[in-house]
Amino acid sequence: MKLYTYFRSSAAYRVRIALNLKGLSYEAVPVHLLKDGGQQRQDDYRQINPSALVPTLQDDRITLTQSMAIIEYLDERYPAVPLLPQDPPGRARVRELAQIIACDIHPLNNLRVLRHLVHELKLSEEQKNAWIRHWIGEGLASLEAHLARDPAAGPFCHGSSPTIADCFLVPQVFNAQRFEIDMAAYPNISRIHALCVDMPAFAGAHPSQQPDAE
Amino acid sequence: MKLYTYFRSSAAYRVRIALNLKGLSYEAVPVHLLKDGGQQRQDDYRQINPSALVPTLQDDRITLTQSMAIIEYLDERYPAVPLLPQDPPGRARVRELAQIIACDIHPLNNLRVLRHLVHELKLSEEQKNAWIRHWIGEGLASLEAHLARDPAAGPFCHGSSPTIADCFLVPQVFNAQRFEIDMAAYPNISRIHALCVDMPAFAGAHPSQQPDAE
Repeated sequence: MKLYTYFRSSAAYRVRIALNLKGLSYEAVPVHLLKDGGQQRQDDYRQINPSALVPTLQDDRITLTQSMAIIEYLDERYPAVPLLPQDPPGRARVRELAQIIACDIHPLNNLRVLRHLVHELKLSEEQKNAWIRHWIGEGLASLEAHLARDPAAGPFCHGSSPTIADCFLVPQVFNAQRFEIDMAAYPNISRIHALCVDMPAFAGAHPSQQPDAE
Repeated sequence: MKLYTYFRSSAAYRVRIALNLKGLSYEAVPVHLLKDGGQQRQDDYRQINPSALVPTLQDDRITLTQSMAIIEYLDERYPAVPLLPQDPPGRARVRELAQIIACDIHPLNNLRVLRHLVHELKLSEEQKNAWIRHWIGEGLASLEAHLARDPAAGPFCHGSSPTIADCFLVPQVFNAQRFEIDMAAYPNISRIHALCVDMPAFAGAHPSQQPDAE
């Protein structure tokens, strides 16, 4: 199994956590998002992923993009360490939490969008950072409210073992910390993050631990 | 079953299509995103959905947000008309296509983001429209490339019956048409859209057919 990855990509970080939680070994193929005008935009990579984004997973059956689709695929194909609960409402809730991050927070702050804000809309560094903090702040407040009201939230996002939601939460908190967002307003998120981040599966997926880390 | 919806919300439109494809009846509860400073931001709605977005689905077991999580829940709870294929690679592919729309296109063009561009960043109407067209154009080009290269693409996004991917494609094309994007560059997307849009399940979910349509 090959994972096209970039150490700091939070979408790739999610998949690395899922692979580690499941104990699956893989070959990491680094795609440098900043070098050579963005290696993800070069023709050879576009042949693999026409969206010109990371991550991409390749195995004997499929070349697959989109972190959520990849993790659900891994969960179906390698069910031994499940990352979704068994009951439909529980599964729905885990997907909902992951998608608050995947759809409402991350897409507004990824590299191609920040680049567009600076190069096309001529935003200053200060305006760009305000944009990032605004959307991460809004999104984490939503996620916190969802976690706070739900009796199914346990030590992890859902119950007593890691799920897909935790695979998404940890990289999003890493991003928030990079942009110096005060996490004190998000006690449930902070608590879950603190529990996960030292577990070997999460720690080994951290950007600083990747072969392409700088 | 209750669906909190807004006629023009493309995330709500996706769920309406899925409900119709499955032949499930529901009570539509309109949430007007523009009236009263946005009904979705009022306290009574935030009690239901802390993210202050539509749609929200309520049944006897769960109050659920995020269109993808809602549709997967419906598919697990009411499996009679499946919206995902049976094989893991096929399921992965359908999710991937839906998520190209849900993660890479739609989040950049929804109401709260466009509002922020105009009110906070002081973009002109023209700059706002250029932003919309840029991201929809990039995203549809990716989706088109994924569809064009994949032998599993049939009359629908995946094979010969509608899946979750089609539930996402049709509302995204509706949005593209609203912003007068030339669809000629996307022949596979256009072909699939043309097939779906006249089917009763899709036609009945169209914004113009909703009780709150203007």
